[in-house]
Amino acid sequence: MSELLRDLALANRILAHEGVVDAFGHVSVRHPERAERFVMSRSRSPELVTLDDLMEFTLDGTPLDARGRTPYSERFIHGAIYEARPDVMAVVHAHAEDTLPFGIAPAKLRPVIHSGAFIGAEVPVWDIAKRFGERTNLLVTNVAQGRDLAKSLRKNNVVLMRGHGFAAAATSLIDVVRMSVYLPRNARVQFRALQLGKVKPLSRGEIQARTGGAGYKPQSPETQRAWQYWAARAGCAELLKQLS
Amino acid sequence: MSELLRDLALANRILAHEGVVDAFGHVSVRHPERAERFVMSRSRSPELVTLDDLMEFTLDGTPLDARGRTPYSERFIHGAIYEARPDVMAVVHAHAEDTLPFGIAPAKLRPVIHSGAFIGAEVPVWDIAKRFGERTNLLVTNVAQGRDLAKSLRKNNVVLMRGHGFAAAATSLIDVVRMSVYLPRNARVQFRALQLGKVKPLSRGEIQARTGGAGYKPQSPETQRAWQYWAARAGCAELLKQLS
Amino acid sequence: MSELLRDLALANRILAHEGVVDAFGHVSVRHPERAERFVMSRSRSPELVTLDDLMEFTLDGTPLDARGRTPYSERFIHGAIYEARPDVMAVVHAHAEDTLPFGIAPAKLRPVIHSGAFIGAEVPVWDIAKRFGERTNLLVTNVAQGRDLAKSLRKNNVVLMRGHGFAAAATSLIDVVRMSVYLPRNARVQFRALQLGKVKPLSRGEIQARTGGAGYKPQSPETQRAWQYWAARAGCAELLKQLS
Amino acid sequence: MSELLRDLALANRILAHEGVVDAFGHVSVRHPERAERFVMSRSRSPELVTLDDLMEFTLDGTPLDARGRTPYSERFIHGAIYEARPDVMAVVHAHAEDTLPFGIAPAKLRPVIHSGAFIGAEVPVWDIAKRFGERTNLLVTNVAQGRDLAKSLRKNNVVLMRGHGFAAAATSLIDVVRMSVYLPRNARVQFRALQLGKVKPLSRGEIQARTGGAGYKPQSPETQRAWQYWAARAGCAELLKQLS
Repeated sequence: MSELLRDLALANRILAHEGVVDAFGHVSVRHPERAERFVMSRSRSPELVTLDDLMEFTLDGTPLDARGRTPYSERFIHGAIYEARPDVMAVVHAHAEDTLPFGIAPAKLRPVIHSGAFIGAEVPVWDIAKRFGERTNLLVTNVAQGRDLAKSLRKNNVVLMRGHGFAAAATSLIDVVRMSVYLPRNARVQFRALQLGKVKPLSRGEIQARTGGAGYKPQSPETQRAWQYWAARAGCAELLKQLS
Repeated sequence: MSELLRDLALANRILAHEGVVDAFGHVSVRHPERAERFVMSRSRSPELVTLDDLMEFTLDGTPLDARGRTPYSERFIHGAIYEARPDVMAVVHAHAEDTLPFGIAPAKLRPVIHSGAFIGAEVPVWDIAKRFGERTNLLVTNVAQGRDLAKSLRKNNVVLMRGHGFAAAATSLIDVVRMSVYLPRNARVQFRALQLGKVKPLSRGEIQARTGGAGYKPQSPETQRAWQYWAARAGCAELLKQLS
Repeated sequence: MSELLRDLALANRILAHEGVVDAFGHVSVRHPERAERFVMSRSRSPELVTLDDLMEFTLDGTPLDARGRTPYSERFIHGAIYEARPDVMAVVHAHAEDTLPFGIAPAKLRPVIHSGAFIGAEVPVWDIAKRFGERTNLLVTNVAQGRDLAKSLRKNNVVLMRGHGFAAAATSLIDVVRMSVYLPRNARVQFRALQLGKVKPLSRGEIQARTGGAGYKPQSPETQRAWQYWAARAGCAELLKQLS
Repeated sequence: MSELLRDLALANRILAHEGVVDAFGHVSVRHPERAERFVMSRSRSPELVTLDDLMEFTLDGTPLDARGRTPYSERFIHGAIYEARPDVMAVVHAHAEDTLPFGIAPAKLRPVIHSGAFIGAEVPVWDIAKRFGERTNLLVTNVAQGRDLAKSLRKNNVVLMRGHGFAAAATSLIDVVRMSVYLPRNARVQFRALQLGKVKPLSRGEIQARTGGAGYKPQSPETQRAWQYWAARAGCAELLKQLS
């Protein structure tokens, strides 16, 4: 458990350094022993998150150990996804700039590069206005909104949120970080390719080969390599060393 | 007052570090006790501004305590906006690159992402040539030009200046900084989305929800979080700590 | 030999710092005395590679001195190119983002700037699916796939890999690094120029003049100048000094 | 003179830090007392240039004090422009990426933002192939090529070189640096605006107002401000202090 918490602090720093989050955005993990809980930072910029900022929540977003700490107002995104998807162990919500055009224009975001395969064959777009009207502030600030988003995510790995950002879900923390780092890159490549003519995306079989059996594994040397690299770039190599 | 001045110095550093200003561009605050005055740096690159650079001006741009310091030649932008808009407490003028295309082409800049909502539903474009002819150097260097710009701004939060930059006005310093940081991001996202087909901007109701009642507040944890983060990135975390 | 190994470590750091590789991608050299071998790092992010990470391989990708170190799973790219092309002394495989759009859209990457001349008049696109079907994970993980890629490269210097990256081959390490640094730049310039109308690429004669006789030479002052500069930027200037 | 030389070293560092030059590109000044000479670095990456690297040349590119130092192979660009244009006191040649698309596509680079006004109303494109055929290596490596380029520049401030870069000429060192920094920005803004519809460039009167009488002056506080800022960013603030 303590290793997972340190990895969660590290994930905050990595996502900030790689430009996935700025002052806003957050990452969480499901509690490894109590599946009806999740852990995420109090309301703080991810780059500045430390172990002391981590809080436990029930899936409806109620803090279990607030101790005066203010939670993120959008924690309901995380709780609702854990509730709807027992397979999900980690969630990221972010506003990574290069994903945003695909949430407000008709072109569909699709995996076009091998590192983008993890986003899956389909990336739905959730428009908060559809169910909650044209007068929200676009944020997901209650359980009902979170559940509606999770419903839109369905069995996919990523859902774009119109005019706002994305939510990504995976079976491990390292998976969700990797997906979140390469999602904006995939979006940039697809954007440019679309200006160059008809684009060939990854095939269903290729997506499956990477995300299923023989493909990418969280514990593979390739993935550990990336984790170590991102930690070093974020100035956290020492922290990583202590972990292992 | 002394805290506001330190925040103003900090705002200069933040805007420089976030790429909103470079050697050029400036930020000011209205004097909190004497509404007919405003405070801004002498003519210096924002990244290098310290407390000793801050000067007081009357709304017509006359320095009250020059002590040999050269003022910005475009201080009239600030004075004229404070004069026309009693609600405005802080102003930024900058040339942020990604806003510039929208000042010289027919496409209208509009809020398309939730962090861009603060720019408001309408962003007018002011063309100095319309009233002052085709032979200006494009800079706003006297009261008459400042007033014409302020008139074009009307009740909005941002006005683009053709071939030059933008002016942003808000009811607090932290508000105007946040708006100025996310304005270029909104412009980049809109630019890209326009290449991808018909774009869905924020609705009037969404813009109002974020900028009015229940939405964003300068003293909210979310906004303090951003201020702290930007200060840390700009290498000013220590300065911020001294302030509070 | 020891100088070449230090240059190979340096090349890893340079390619990482110049954004050609991130956690993934690799560079190798053919063994200068035993042409049936090549040298590359064990499975590690190039930015972190040191002399101790370098391993020797036979051209079919078999490690000769593993000592418990895990090799890159895509080492077959390198071996197959050395096998097919006796003139090649160094190979880079990377996923440089700006090259990727040209691998999934019909527009052909061509040299359009003098620093891009080294990629050669023709840059073929290899699609792994053509021979190995729609269910691969896109990676080149065996000798047969490497050989098919090398066949697609033919006598050219660069081959794009659909949805994946590129492989570049040159007659020296410094050549392959330089080509890999300027390849993404050439791609960016061509991408933008294509939005501006009909593009004039380099002529065959110009490409030949730069890459043949009187043009660029690995030992020219210009090339040494670049190597020294990249090493300095990557924080390796001291390392370079020790070498010479 | 010694102050000018230190400024020239500083200009090298500034142009490197602002991304105008990389390992390649150079800046020179005309000798202030002997108009038939100019000064520039030996063949070295601008970021690494020091006072000891500066060499004197006659206008045909002959070094006067080589002392074993290798000159830039393209010094003929500089000599030929000084020869043709007695008003020019400083020259930059660079390959700034964002200017390159305008050298290979039909769209004409024009000043569209006030900081780009210094490039002048017209920016010709020089194609080395027109006079020297399709088999050059694109570099300007002799007096005849330099003179042909200078002829193409005419009375303008900037000439684009097809598939290669640009040459910029000004009446002072600080002027040519400023122009070279804002030229790529102007190109980026124009590129984007062109995707947004019909673009309104600066008028002739506006260009003249900025570059003629009452506009920008090398010794103005605004320009000194920029010079100080760029020097600070390039880590040369101390060097600048020693100068004044």
